[in-house]
Order: sequence, then structure tokens, then C-alpha cells
Amino acid sequence: MAKKPGVQAERIRSDLVRFARIGAMPGGGVQRLSFSPQEIAARQLALHLMQAAGLTVRIDGIGNLFGRVEGKNPALSPLWVGSHIDTVPAGGKFDGSVGVAAALEVVRVLREDPEPPDRPVEAVVFVSEESSRFGLATIGSGVVAGVLRPEEFLDLRDADGRRLVDLLACQGFDAETIASARIGPDDVRAFFEVHIEQGRVLEAEGMSIGIATAIANSTRLRVTFLGRADHSGATPMSLRRDAFVAAAHLATHIETLCRETDPPVVGTVGVVRVEPGAMNVIPGRVELGVDIRSTSGPAKEAVAERVETEARRISEGRELGIEVELLGRGVPVELGKEMVDLLEDVCRSRGYLHRLLPCGAGHDAMQMARVAEAGLVLIPCREGVSHNPAEWAEMAEIVLGAEVILEAVRRFEGRRPQGSDAERNER
Amino acid sequence: MAKKPGVQAERIRSDLVRFARIGAMPGGGVQRLSFSPQEIAARQLALHLMQAAGLTVRIDGIGNLFGRVEGKNPALSPLWVGSHIDTVPAGGKFDGSVGVAAALEVVRVLREDPEPPDRPVEAVVFVSEESSRFGLATIGSGVVAGVLRPEEFLDLRDADGRRLVDLLACQGFDAETIASARIGPDDVRAFFEVHIEQGRVLEAEGMSIGIATAIANSTRLRVTFLGRADHSGATPMSLRRDAFVAAAHLATHIETLCRETDPPVVGTVGVVRVEPGAMNVIPGRVELGVDIRSTSGPAKEAVAERVETEARRISEGRELGIEVELLGRGVPVELGKEMVDLLEDVCRSRGYLHRLLPCGAGHDAMQMARVAEAGLVLIPCREGVSHNPAEWAEMAEIVLGAEVILEAVRRFEGRRPQGSDAERNER
Repeated sequence: MAKKPGVQAERIRSDLVRFARIGAMPGGGVQRLSFSPQEIAARQLALHLMQAAGLTVRIDGIGNLFGRVEGKNPALSPLWVGSHIDTVPAGGKFDGSVGVAAALEVVRVLREDPEPPDRPVEAVVFVSEESSRFGLATIGSGVVAGVLRPEEFLDLRDADGRRLVDLLACQGFDAETIASARIGPDDVRAFFEVHIEQGRVLEAEGMSIGIATAIANSTRLRVTFLGRADHSGATPMSLRRDAFVAAAHLATHIETLCRETDPPVVGTVGVVRVEPGAMNVIPGRVELGVDIRSTSGPAKEAVAERVETEARRISEGRELGIEVELLGRGVPVELGKEMVDLLEDVCRSRGYLHRLLPCGAGHDAMQMARVAEAGLVLIPCREGVSHNPAEWAEMAEIVLGAEVILEAVRRFEGRRPQGSDAERNER
Repeated sequence: MAKKPGVQAERIRSDLVRFARIGAMPGGGVQRLSFSPQEIAARQLALHLMQAAGLTVRIDGIGNLFGRVEGKNPALSPLWVGSHIDTVPAGGKFDGSVGVAAALEVVRVLREDPEPPDRPVEAVVFVSEESSRFGLATIGSGVVAGVLRPEEFLDLRDADGRRLVDLLACQGFDAETIASARIGPDDVRAFFEVHIEQGRVLEAEGMSIGIATAIANSTRLRVTFLGRADHSGATPMSLRRDAFVAAAHLATHIETLCRETDPPVVGTVGVVRVEPGAMNVIPGRVELGVDIRSTSGPAKEAVAERVETEARRISEGRELGIEVELLGRGVPVELGKEMVDLLEDVCRSRGYLHRLLPCGAGHDAMQMARVAEAGLVLIPCREGVSHNPAEWAEMAEIVLGAEVILEAVRRFEGRRPQGSDAERNER
């Protein structure tokens, strides 16, 4: 078999540069919020790139974009390769974009190959993966996978009060078109995604490729302590009902709890609102946004339950009011052994430095894993920095990520059958 | 001696209602920020009221307002009675206004009395007592007392970036006029102020009048923990440098420290800024505004020092950066025994339920105590609520506060000489 053409680094780089110009910020970051004009313009660029590559373009009922190269057997369920193109506020050039640029290049290479792939392959650009604007993540892939229904999110508003339903209507989408975006059992055989790690494990170990074995999901709580906003000078310590000290106790407890937990659970208090927020007033109301994540659902729920118990214990001991609101309870997913084996085989045969690892961040692959096999390839990002203008990934490793996906797509039909470790060793 | 006329409740009530209309908010609160059009309009109303009462009006070089009734001996240093008319954002109708309305009524009654007071008495309205707009409290009285010099505050900006120097210039004031507002040693004999307690001690004990024995002052620190804003899902607990958990440990420590301290020190973390402030990002930077108060300077400084030590210990243990900035170090004041005795004698002879107490909140009386005798009469406010639209004080107790001041002013010349407790018991 003649050596197949590989991905071309220069084309990936060029596409990334073009995406980074859409929503570019003066300080160097990129801002393409879900369903914003910038995000839509970036989707339009992806569409142009797909057309230029000779792909057959299709847009589903919520705006997810597909560029297809036909397979030898067009009747077979396609393989999908993709990610998202929206960003957090003041985000970076790599989160999502790397996966989209890699997907475009993988499908472009397959399209250029005189010998078509065994089954159809589609580059996919999902809408609204980031939760920053509407408080809900992976909307595009969630709808496709049947995990999210329109009625669950159409009424969401952003911080400026703009309703998602109205933004979608401007694009010609409504509850009916969105419902039609849900795929059936034969619409996709497997999904592949390249994404920056957004952590520091690969960098710390000098690895170029991470193969995700599972994707963590989070339980999110809003814990509100209600105390008394008394004057900070005129109120003796014994008469205080300080909502912030209560919240502080909870935050230290969450850290201690998560440090001790096995299987690993991480807990973060990332949102803190203190009212009234003046030097001379004791905080009367404090709201904490708590994110608890794990690749183990039961371990995550056990921690979430202990956090709530502790929050109530603290508030009772301090005679405070308390509200604990469940903002979301996601289900972690295992990524199938067959897929992990395939990706690992590719890395081994290519000699790429790689390791298996659980993935702590949520991705479109998480939703796709509910309806198809899903492979998630992680590449290092400098110092783990992400969701930040300083986000950075090396082109060399972006290219390796794309290569791994291209090769995995090519080997998909002929991959070794799923088997025990004993069988693997016999090979 | 014929019974002297007392204060007229209806006139105090009427003045308070008029002040409350200036800067009235739809929700019921009052907003007259320092040097805002609303605050200046309220000063103008006070001036009109002074003129209507036949007082001689004078405005000093920063805008403090004086309305004078002449004494039998105009050469004697005057007694001053007053407070401030500015408010915090969304403040109440009583903080400051009670003291101004009481002062106006006291001097009005003295003016109406066919027999003039022994020495001149002036109603005083100080500018900019609240620190909310420019981060600096008691500017008007601080300038008068020579505690604050123009160069220390002219460059201050409010949250919208407006410079204090420009606002003052609009009123015709500059560094030179402001410097001229500083009084000399013979310009005032004693200062009297009525103020709501802004705490719950009087209410809890069913007292109508509190006589302040000392006024606490605060040391204010800005403590900033600098961690790493990593992804909350992709960063194991062991790799985190979470600035908020560090801040939380400090906040719980401050409470513990202050609960144990004698003489009493109160410590409050009232301002908390968490960046970037997203559910899925570990806080990379947290800024705490810490207020430490006491009527004992040494006790306060000892606590402030231990807070800083603990903050550095926490940051070191967690490999965080830290910045500790001293925002202000105020000096508490003792209020003289002679003045406290005078006010106590008045309450006793009138049969008012009263107690002596240290005052935890800062007031204009604190600055005036540095250059003259100062008497601070506190009245209860409902549930201790202040700096809030719900702030409330009973007219009956406002009137008692004014009565105490009126009577103390009348008895000032003939008060018992300062002496030991033994001498007091002999009386």
C-alpha cells in the first residue's frame, strides 16, 4: 500500500489564523460568544473552507455545520470529526478552533486522496459549546445527541437579558427545526475530536498526545448564605451573622473533602458574590457557585451531597439562612476501550509520546459518546492556560493531533477487534 | 429660673422629611453621594433653614456650613452642634440627617430664647463624611480639624473616574480655600453630635440614649492572593493554586482572631473580588478588603499585624503570590470624661434610659475630638440596620437625642468640674 498523504501543517496554521481574526480583541484574545455575530461569522468561514475543499455542505436545524467527503459505500454511517468554534468571553485562539481546523484538514486530505475512504467522513462544527453566555454547555452536540431538547434552553437569557430563542429565530431556527437536528441511530458511526487539554498533565510529563479514557462531568450548586448586613464597626463579633465567613468555611471544607476523595473528584468555588460589598458593612448575602467534577458519577454525587450537608450545618451553627440550588447534574462518560485502543495503536505505530488520561473538561465528544463511539485526542497547552487570551498550543502538536485523527479514521474499518488484554498481548 | 423652651418634635420631623426628598430613590432609600448635586442641594436646604431661623450663615473653604446664634459673650469660642448630610449609595433617611436636623433645631431653639446662650453656638453641616464615593471618610471635619490636608485627597477619583479636585473646583473650592478651612485653637470650644447607633446594642437593652465614651477607628488592608486561573475540570486538586481557598482561610482566621481579642477588636472582610469569576475556572486572583476596628489603637494594630502574618503564611504554604496594602490606619479617640459626665448628668436628670458605650462607627465627632471636647449621643436604629433604605429611627428617640444636646449646651458653662470618682460620689 502506497504511503497515504498526511495533513499539511501550513493549511491548519492558515485556517487557525483566519479563525483567530474573527472576534480578535485588542489585547490578543478572541471573543466569539455562542450565537454572536462573531461566532456566526466563524461558522460562515468554516463553510467557505468546506466548499473550497470540495466537501458537500449541510447545516442542521440549530446551525451545526457538516462538510462531507463521500465514502466507497455511501450507505454506511459516516464518521464525524469536529469540535466547536465559539469561545468564552476574552478567550483564546485554540479552545475549539484547533479541533475545527484539524477536522477541516483531515477531511480535506481524505477528499484529495484519489482513493475515497471506506465510509463517508464529515467535518463537524458544533454551535454553542461554551456555557459562558447562557449557562449551558454543548448545546449543539447535546441537541444532536438527543440529550438536550429545545424546551430546556430556548428560554435561557444571557447577562444582557437577550433570549436564546430570539437569537436562534434571527438565524431561521425554531423549536421544530432544532428538534429535527437530533440524529437517529444510523446517522453517525463514530466521532473524533482534537482539543487542547486545558490542564497541565501532558505538559508536566512531556507528552504530545493524550488519549481520553473518560470525560468528567460536573454537578453544579449555587449556595447562598443569608446573614445580616450590619455595620462593620458598630456590631460586636458576638452579634454578627456574617454570610462571608460562613461561605469561607464552606470553601475550605470543599477543598479538604476533594483532596481526600478517591476516585478523584475536583471541587471549585469559582463564582463568589458578596453583598453589599463595602468595607464598612458585614456581608449580608453571599452566593457561591460550586462546581464538582469527576469521571465517576457516584463519587461526584457523594461529594455534592457532603457539600450540601456541610453548607446546611454551617448555616445552622451560625443562625444564617441558606439556599442550595442544583444548577446542573451532568453524567460523566466512559470512552469505549475499542476506540482508546485504536488511538493508542496509532500513537504507538507513529512513535508519538502519548498517555491515556481522564479528561476533566467537558467537550462535544462527551455528548457524542452517548450516541456513537467517541475518540477524544488531547494536546498540551502551555502551562495549562485556557479560557484566556494567553492560551497557547504548539503547531507541531496541533498537527500531531490532526495526524492521529486522520490515521484513526483510515484504520477505523480494519482496527483490531475488541478483546481482553490477553488477546492484545497475543498479537 | 423659668423653664426653658425645649425642642419641637414637629420641626425636626418636617426637616427630616424635606432632607429625605433630596436624592429619594424609587425603592424608598436616599442617595446623596459626597459632592453630588443631591448632596449640594441638601446643603442648600440646610442653608435656607438656617436663614429662616435667623442664624448667621457662613460657608468654609470646602463647603462645610455653619449657622450661628450669637452668645452673651461673642468673643468666647463657640460650641458646635452638627453632623453630615451626604449618604452612602442607596442609603437611609437617618444616618447624618438626624444629626443635622437635631443641630438645626437646637440652634433654632436657642435663637428663639429671649436670653442668648453664654457663648455662641453654631449648627454645622459637614461635607463628605461617608467614604463610599472616594474611599475616604470624614473629609469635611477632617479638614477642619487639620487631620486631612488637600494634597491627601484632591487626586482621589470615584468609581466613574471623576476627580474630587474637579468636583470641588465646580463649587469654587481649591487647595488654597480648603487649607483655609482648618480651624485654629480658639475657633471651637466643644462639638456635639447626635447620630443613629448603626448597631444593635441600645435596641437590645431597651435604651433610648447611648453616650459614646470612645470612637473606634479602623485599619484597612487590601489583601490580594495571586494564584493560577486554571480550568476547574482539567486541574487535579494537587496542581491547583486556588486564590479563593487561600482567601477563605484568611477570612475564617480573622473571625477566630477577633473573637478571642481583648480589648475588643472587630474584623470584617466586606469586599471580595474573585477573578475571573466563572464556574469552570479556578480563581486566579482574589482581592479582600479587610476592616479591623477597635477603640484601642494597640489592640487594633496587633490584630492587623497578625492578619498580615497569617495572610503571608497562607500564601507561602500554597505557593501563591500575595500583596498586602495598607489602605488606612485611623487613630481611635477617647471622648473626655468631663463631656461624658455632662451628657450622663443630663440623661439622669431627665430620666432618659441611657448607657455609656464605645462607638464602633466613625463619625465627624471623631475628627472634632482631636481639636476640641466632643460629645457623641447615639440613638437606637431599628435592628441596627444602617447604610440601607430600611434604616429607621423613632421620632421620639430622635427628639430625645436633640433634647440631650440642647440641655448639654445650656449646662455647658455651669457643668461640674472634672474630678475623680471619689469626688463624684461626694456630690
